[in-house]
Amino acid sequence: MTDASQPMAPALRVERWFNTAAPITLDGLRGKVVVLEAFQMLCPGCVSHGLPQAGRIHATFAHDQVAVIGLHTVFEHHAAMTPVALQAFLHEYRIAFPVGVDMPGMRDPIPQTMRAYAMRGTPTLVLIDRNGRLRHRHLGQVSDLLLGAQIASLSGEAHDESHNGHAASTSSCTATSCFRDASGTNGNTVRGMESDDVSG
Amino acid sequence: MTDASQPMAPALRVERWFNTAAPITLDGLRGKVVVLEAFQMLCPGCVSHGLPQAGRIHATFAHDQVAVIGLHTVFEHHAAMTPVALQAFLHEYRIAFPVGVDMPGMRDPIPQTMRAYAMRGTPTLVLIDRNGRLRHRHLGQVSDLLLGAQIASLSGEAHDESHNGHAASTSSCTATSCFRDASGTNGNTVRGMESDDVSG
Amino acid sequence: MTDASQPMAPALRVERWFNTAAPITLDGLRGKVVVLEAFQMLCPGCVSHGLPQAGRIHATFAHDQVAVIGLHTVFEHHAAMTPVALQAFLHEYRIAFPVGVDMPGMRDPIPQTMRAYAMRGTPTLVLIDRNGRLRHRHLGQVSDLLLGAQIASLSGEAHDESHNGHAASTSSCTATSCFRDASGTNGNTVRGMESDDVSG
Amino acid sequence: MTDASQPMAPALRVERWFNTAAPITLDGLRGKVVVLEAFQMLCPGCVSHGLPQAGRIHATFAHDQVAVIGLHTVFEHHAAMTPVALQAFLHEYRIAFPVGVDMPGMRDPIPQTMRAYAMRGTPTLVLIDRNGRLRHRHLGQVSDLLLGAQIASLSGEAHDESHNGHAASTSSCTATSCFRDASGTNGNTVRGMESDDVSG
Repeated sequence: MTDASQPMAPALRVERWFNTAAPITLDGLRGKVVVLEAFQMLCPGCVSHGLPQAGRIHATFAHDQVAVIGLHTVFEHHAAMTPVALQAFLHEYRIAFPVGVDMPGMRDPIPQTMRAYAMRGTPTLVLIDRNGRLRHRHLGQVSDLLLGAQIASLSGEAHDESHNGHAASTSSCTATSCFRDASGTNGNTVRGMESDDVSG
Repeated sequence: MTDASQPMAPALRVERWFNTAAPITLDGLRGKVVVLEAFQMLCPGCVSHGLPQAGRIHATFAHDQVAVIGLHTVFEHHAAMTPVALQAFLHEYRIAFPVGVDMPGMRDPIPQTMRAYAMRGTPTLVLIDRNGRLRHRHLGQVSDLLLGAQIASLSGEAHDESHNGHAASTSSCTATSCFRDASGTNGNTVRGMESDDVSG
Repeated sequence: MTDASQPMAPALRVERWFNTAAPITLDGLRGKVVVLEAFQMLCPGCVSHGLPQAGRIHATFAHDQVAVIGLHTVFEHHAAMTPVALQAFLHEYRIAFPVGVDMPGMRDPIPQTMRAYAMRGTPTLVLIDRNGRLRHRHLGQVSDLLLGAQIASLSGEAHDESHNGHAASTSSCTATSCFRDASGTNGNTVRGMESDDVSG
Repeated sequence: MTDASQPMAPALRVERWFNTAAPITLDGLRGKVVVLEAFQMLCPGCVSHGLPQAGRIHATFAHDQVAVIGLHTVFEHHAAMTPVALQAFLHEYRIAFPVGVDMPGMRDPIPQTMRAYAMRGTPTLVLIDRNGRLRHRHLGQVSDLLLGAQIASLSGEAHDESHNGHAASTSSCTATSCFRDASGTNGNTVRGMESDDVSG
């Protein structure tokens, strides 16, 4: 449950956005759980694990409850990973969620948002709760099971502005109604097909 | 949130248990979320997807909050999938969670628990809430993200006997404290290593 | 090139065959390269690696030049891995190539063919040349690249009865004509589609 | 077997080389089978399939018999896939074999070598025989089994300058002696360890 002792997530410092009509701010996302995927386009672990996982989160959770945002945190090979190169990368890899280019540091190879979040490398996945507090930070690979649980747990917490302490009544994540249709996930090694909620 | 209109999960009808000192009943698991993995040892989708996923759930969630149970629901090739064959299978595949052999049907190829749950095939994963109600049923492949979210959501609900309507305060799943150590999940394609909670 | 110093492959001692109208003998396969896949139906490495690889070999190479044979070499859990259980396994896993049940040993847990080949475990893949000589034996995982190369090399060797020392002229493997259509292997991450031989 | 009717492989037109001390020419590779992997650093299929496969070939076959060469054939997003970006990519993805940057076309988005080989996209894998003739061209995914067989078949052919018509005697690929140590490919799902040649 939200705890005033938890730090607020630093503001995003972005020089350019892709896949969004208007710049995105964390303040504008209050009430939603925010999944921030920090990556570099030439980081093998980001390409093979981090970005596909962020894409699965984007495809699984309802966008009015969970926001997925990519952050291009270039801290090496700056001449190679330019916004122009990133734009081609996002197109070729069909990245559908918004991606911001982290503001370059002044006399600092580490970009400004990456520095503010004290990220130690890429990929780093950050979870921010509905009240804008920084709750989880994962460097490298983290399992879909754990992430799914953390996202649902944060989604089930109260949003302070809701004046409502009952998680269950503020979150539709106590039923699958907060998830987008997952029927496409059934495999063909199966006899028959089904994925349902059960109600009397 | 638990709804009296949701059906209670039928009792398990098991002829033999493996990996447990004493027989398991759903009544005995009240207060925990129950993950029931129905499988057949010669079902390719169960071996490649269902059972490994159940193993990941068993390894990820705290055992005092989430119980993983396998159920061998043989509805075909009965002569091949005997308890003796299952015992060898469980040993070779290093299945660590309790597994029950579904009670054979009388003049019915479908075993009794499988029939009571109206399962249509294998693998079928069933989620039962902390109050013993049948909440989700997935036939075939379901994503770890969705399952992780559903398990955490059910874990965050109130347990009626707890006399406490505040999910957040009855569940330790509002922080990672309900998860077992996941540090082993970090990959080696990563620069550095980290997986932490953030608190002030 | 075939070398008289290389040992002849021991005869197969099989108590029962599946997926073949008539019993198979190595003598009857002279002139073909023989891929012998020794496995146990409850051996995880056989199910996840060995048998799928044998299936790929069966699907890739021309059957008049390369014969793929499965051998069920049960040396543990004998009561679980019976011919009845194997028959159900072969059906469920859609194993298309012939499979023989290795003749049980007398007062010996190791079956007779496995003993004759001095196999140390499963999966073991054995390659026999066109003249019936035992050429390669791989325990555990071996790469498709290496196997493809060894099979083609053996296929390119002379068959003694052919009275023809020119490998190139006795083997159609010097062109893709010895391979079955591989067009199905093109992926959908590709721009366009093509897989051709080049000739003037 | 080499056939004068088969076209000679066009010369490589490269503006810059990486991972090699001196420029590479096909003439200089006569007597070896040449595996030419044409790719673009921002082509997902190249990153996930083509380049790892080329790396496996490089690690499997003896370098004095099989030469693996990468060719960066940029035909789109030219501003993103510069030599500077490629250099960072090769470093991050640990590409160990020589890679040439295909010479840009004049008023043509297709680079010169790609045009000369009539490649239709990336990844494209080309096999050139020991006499410099273009023998196979694969666009997109091709199986390791088929590639391993084609490489070994070409390796088993005579090299005209060798004045020796006996493939078997000019090629050490009739035994595993033409392969580099593959013992590292054994998996840990196996009981025991072994990968051997058999000789009397």
